[in-house]
Amino acid sequence: MSRKKVVLALGGNALGKDVEEQKVAVAKTAKVIVDLAQQGLDIIITHGNGPQVGMIQNAMDNLVVLHDNYKQIPLPTCVAMSQGYIGIDLQNAIKYELYSRGIDGKVSTILSQIEVNKDDEAFSNPTKPIGRFLTKKEAAENEINGVHCMEDAGRGYRVVVASPMPQRIRELETIKTLVHAGHIVITCGGGGIPVVSDAKGRLVGVNAVIDKDNASSLLASQLDADYLIILTAVEKVAINFGKEDQEWLSDLTVEQAKKYIEENQFAKGSMLPKIEAAIRFAESGEGRRTLITLLDKASEGIAGKTGTIIHI
Amino acid sequence: MSRKKVVLALGGNALGKDVEEQKVAVAKTAKVIVDLAQQGLDIIITHGNGPQVGMIQNAMDNLVVLHDNYKQIPLPTCVAMSQGYIGIDLQNAIKYELYSRGIDGKVSTILSQIEVNKDDEAFSNPTKPIGRFLTKKEAAENEINGVHCMEDAGRGYRVVVASPMPQRIRELETIKTLVHAGHIVITCGGGGIPVVSDAKGRLVGVNAVIDKDNASSLLASQLDADYLIILTAVEKVAINFGKEDQEWLSDLTVEQAKKYIEENQFAKGSMLPKIEAAIRFAESGEGRRTLITLLDKASEGIAGKTGTIIHI
Repeated sequence: MSRKKVVLALGGNALGKDVEEQKVAVAKTAKVIVDLAQQGLDIIITHGNGPQVGMIQNAMDNLVVLHDNYKQIPLPTCVAMSQGYIGIDLQNAIKYELYSRGIDGKVSTILSQIEVNKDDEAFSNPTKPIGRFLTKKEAAENEINGVHCMEDAGRGYRVVVASPMPQRIRELETIKTLVHAGHIVITCGGGGIPVVSDAKGRLVGVNAVIDKDNASSLLASQLDADYLIILTAVEKVAINFGKEDQEWLSDLTVEQAKKYIEENQFAKGSMLPKIEAAIRFAESGEGRRTLITLLDKASEGIAGKTGTIIHI
Repeated sequence: MSRKKVVLALGGNALGKDVEEQKVAVAKTAKVIVDLAQQGLDIIITHGNGPQVGMIQNAMDNLVVLHDNYKQIPLPTCVAMSQGYIGIDLQNAIKYELYSRGIDGKVSTILSQIEVNKDDEAFSNPTKPIGRFLTKKEAAENEINGVHCMEDAGRGYRVVVASPMPQRIRELETIKTLVHAGHIVITCGGGGIPVVSDAKGRLVGVNAVIDKDNASSLLASQLDADYLIILTAVEKVAINFGKEDQEWLSDLTVEQAKKYIEENQFAKGSMLPKIEAAIRFAESGEGRRTLITLLDKASEGIAGKTGTIIHI
């Protein structure tokens, strides 16, 4: 029997919010990953980068303000930096966890760019907040410079960028080569570095953030994975979430999921993109299943004991 | 006949000094690399990161000063970020150059950590200047906090860190796998992320900078490369450099090179580490040759028409 392949999309708590939290968080995350690897699964890991890329952007923006001789660093370059920073910590933690269990395992990090469609309607309607909170005055100044801002529920203003659909993972062949060679591969960090092809066929970074779960779903389908595991802050998906008649779901068909989406059962920017990513993966090929659960329930979930499975 | 393998160590001018210069510089560098690839050579690329990691460190240090809630980002993490930032630009430029010549080539970036010996005497005698120039007062404050500084020839003070010898490239197997699969691989950026193994066998980043040419020499010998090409600011190595009896060298045996080193013919921190890296590579195995020349003379040099060849 051939080995099952899993794309594991880590949530924010798998990494922590700063450089010190990250060192601690990745050690715990690595245990979960190696537990899955010991079940005989091929594992490809994706992760978010919200706090990390926020910090990098903040630092780079300050530098331009403080020093005339520094140029603005574009968002895609900050994403590349965050992939390097997170990838190495995660890779080392997994390698160490393997080593401490007596396994000489291979782990690699692949910087990854994801091509989006330059005509994606998301570019005319940016909705993804990034970076620090701004004052009303700062937001107004940004708008004058063509940088879109949005008020964030009483907490101030934030820059918003487009969140286009991922179309093509540019480093797919490299990822395949390493998975085939038995590596646990870390890739598509922060939803991938967003790029478009210009008229000459050159890859150019764009000011956008690709949803990490969407990117993971595309990766899982293109790698012909058996499972997509989306790790998040709840053990199971619920309907009527937070209400008296709240109901936890263990099993959800694509058909049911679509019905619940129509009923607005899933929160935008939270559970909704995860369910949509799961639907896309299920519809991309036969037998493709998504598990949504907590980080430390991943092994139990894959054994069918908890979490929510989304399938055709 | 099996394909010849080349480790190509890019110099500072191959990348430029900031994000805008880099986009232009890598396009030119990519042409040189693809010219070599079209000669049927397997190519592994290493590069420096001085201005890039300097900028990142500067930005991260400012952030800690400006915001209480940010933690100091260690130098090895900044190196990881710089590898991500430079690697992607270089990878895209090479891919585009291949594409524009009608070649569907594979190019990958591998973040790389290089293990050093924690007892390396370099740690008790830090000599490698990093980051911006400091005032005498700033330098004195740093010394109080245990951060070593050194005066830099009338231009102010700079933090100095250890420059230990590279011992082991932790991602060697990944690099080999991809070279074997036909990829042009970019790796060991900035001399690699410097790490040591702690008592438990865990990799821990250290505050050091590994010389890029030393790292490239180690990589070349461990990959069993035929050539190490060190690109720099001169077409050939000279003795009596800048003097009336200056002599350009086309061919240099290890024995001659060692004699010239004893005569202090090569400048510390400039040509000396390149010659030392070349000697180590030549002595690591039969037939291993190093070419030192200008970026745009690399193809001519490998054809024996210019540059300096160092060999046993």
